[in-house]
Amino acid sequence: MKKHNFSAGPCILPQDVFQKASEAILNFNNLDLSLIEISHRSKDFIAVMEQAQQLALEHLGLEGKGYKILFLQGGASMQFINVPFNLMKNKAGYLNTGTWASKAIKEAKFVGEVVELASSKDSNFNYIPKGYDVPTDLDYIHFTTNNTIFGTQVKEFPEANCPLVCDMSSDIFSRQMDFSKFDIIYAGAQKNMGPAGATLVAVKESVLGKTDRAIPSMLDYRVHAEKDSMFNTPPVFAVYVSMLTLQWLKDLGGVAAIEKKNQAKAELLYNEIDRNPLFKGFAVKEDRSSMNATFNLVDQAHKDSFDALAKEAGLNGINGHRSVGGYRASLYNALPIESVQALVDAMQELERKA
Amino acid sequence: MKKHNFSAGPCILPQDVFQKASEAILNFNNLDLSLIEISHRSKDFIAVMEQAQQLALEHLGLEGKGYKILFLQGGASMQFINVPFNLMKNKAGYLNTGTWASKAIKEAKFVGEVVELASSKDSNFNYIPKGYDVPTDLDYIHFTTNNTIFGTQVKEFPEANCPLVCDMSSDIFSRQMDFSKFDIIYAGAQKNMGPAGATLVAVKESVLGKTDRAIPSMLDYRVHAEKDSMFNTPPVFAVYVSMLTLQWLKDLGGVAAIEKKNQAKAELLYNEIDRNPLFKGFAVKEDRSSMNATFNLVDQAHKDSFDALAKEAGLNGINGHRSVGGYRASLYNALPIESVQALVDAMQELERKA
Repeated sequence: MKKHNFSAGPCILPQDVFQKASEAILNFNNLDLSLIEISHRSKDFIAVMEQAQQLALEHLGLEGKGYKILFLQGGASMQFINVPFNLMKNKAGYLNTGTWASKAIKEAKFVGEVVELASSKDSNFNYIPKGYDVPTDLDYIHFTTNNTIFGTQVKEFPEANCPLVCDMSSDIFSRQMDFSKFDIIYAGAQKNMGPAGATLVAVKESVLGKTDRAIPSMLDYRVHAEKDSMFNTPPVFAVYVSMLTLQWLKDLGGVAAIEKKNQAKAELLYNEIDRNPLFKGFAVKEDRSSMNATFNLVDQAHKDSFDALAKEAGLNGINGHRSVGGYRASLYNALPIESVQALVDAMQELERKA
Repeated sequence: MKKHNFSAGPCILPQDVFQKASEAILNFNNLDLSLIEISHRSKDFIAVMEQAQQLALEHLGLEGKGYKILFLQGGASMQFINVPFNLMKNKAGYLNTGTWASKAIKEAKFVGEVVELASSKDSNFNYIPKGYDVPTDLDYIHFTTNNTIFGTQVKEFPEANCPLVCDMSSDIFSRQMDFSKFDIIYAGAQKNMGPAGATLVAVKESVLGKTDRAIPSMLDYRVHAEKDSMFNTPPVFAVYVSMLTLQWLKDLGGVAAIEKKNQAKAELLYNEIDRNPLFKGFAVKEDRSSMNATFNLVDQAHKDSFDALAKEAGLNGINGHRSVGGYRASLYNALPIESVQALVDAMQELERKA
């Protein structure tokens, strides 16, 4: 039996993508060679890279708007340092909405001054700060759009007179936005895009080259942009699986279509969390994430029973992060609504038995 | 028909590894989940990471000698900057033996002073410099053990009173050495270890922490060592396939056993290059690489005929790098001697027809 996989990342990808990836490991494009034994400079792999870049541009609506799509390595953590290396002259503003935002702030401080615009640390990051002042002398402002651990999501962004940078690792390609509001968007692949090992960076080329800092090649977006993400050997498998996943998304109607499915999944689960007297949500309602629902039992006495029901139903990866506790159900693009229904069924079953 | 794959990297891996990797994409460890959809913090993946680290330690004979094995991202190119960030106080010595050594030098200059100990650039890197002086005030000395593009290999290393650092990307696990002579060894996975997307670093922990530089987390070996390569999400698939490949190597007898096979393959090909009047080698004989044989036709008039014979025989990836021209046959661990024989047969067939 295939499990219902609610893992926070790496996470579920489309079954069809697993199938194609598995086949490509044995024989890619009928070359009688494995995907992972061919040169990254072969025409077959260059076509994969170009298609992945084109699909990402399309899904983000950034075609013809001066952006370059890069596939790099090192996850969001590497971009925490690349962003300030490329953009920071003196100081930057960061919105502190959770663990990953805090890590981004820590790394930026290696490069320059960080102004924390606002923070929800005072209540264990269960909400998104709003109505904060934005200084007018910042080199850029940085957001984490979706806080995987705490289950919150930024839904509105402030007006600013400087570039906007977003870590969209856990909600990219899940909802419609005017992505051209952002000058740099980055995302580790391992949620809605592909397996761990690739990082997407969408960068508006006009914001680069404004500092006089000497930037080591691997940290310099201009180097990767000029070489079309082939400055060094790219993570071939992760890029290929990302391309397959982006193509799957296109085939089912793109971000607009998946957003509807994601809304339906989130509604189904949050409605049950709010209805079922045995459960309570963690994040404040208006800031709830459509990607990661954090919740807990009202009474921990039910924990063993619920965990047994969850196991019996084949629910995988619903334990909450240690800094929140309780449960977390990640509802990424590839998770079918049937899996959410199975979780809701288990919650209702607990209610009946309790 | 499976091809004879002489690609310089990414390159051939054992067929059995392709098979297991393909299966794990569909169902890993009978979890009814794909390898690439499970949490990197699940016990199943942690076991993979630990096994990969243990196997690498064993193969390098570094157990109990104060080394830590890291699996990072970004290839050798990322280590070109990580090494000086972690070790450079004032200046370091680099042996310039080719394209990759030159790139390592370029990146180290972002951090401090580089002394080029010697260079073979004057003759297009077709030999390994020897007998150069080693200053006594260096923070470390850096070598590229095998020059993939030019087909040369460093066989002896100078005595020095400072740490030795080696880029072994294209010959790690191919030959026996006293690896404990080196304080940092790094290697992109995509030759003898696995697919593109993972980088092995073996670091002697006692050499770290000697500079007072503030090092961003992703560039700091101590951060990755402390977190057992789990500071951020590791490249799950690439680590898994590396583990499988290292296990394959152990099962067939380890580095000592593969070295014999590699010597036999290299001898078979170099003997033909030297015997066949239509071909000539590129690298000077004493510095020839056992991993990448570079050679050319004496008379380019035979090029079309030889290329046709190679194609007919299913020889893949034998075109030389543009900076050398001619041909390059990469003889990595997983390449069977039958493939080398097929190449030699094609060379002899050309001689008969010419």
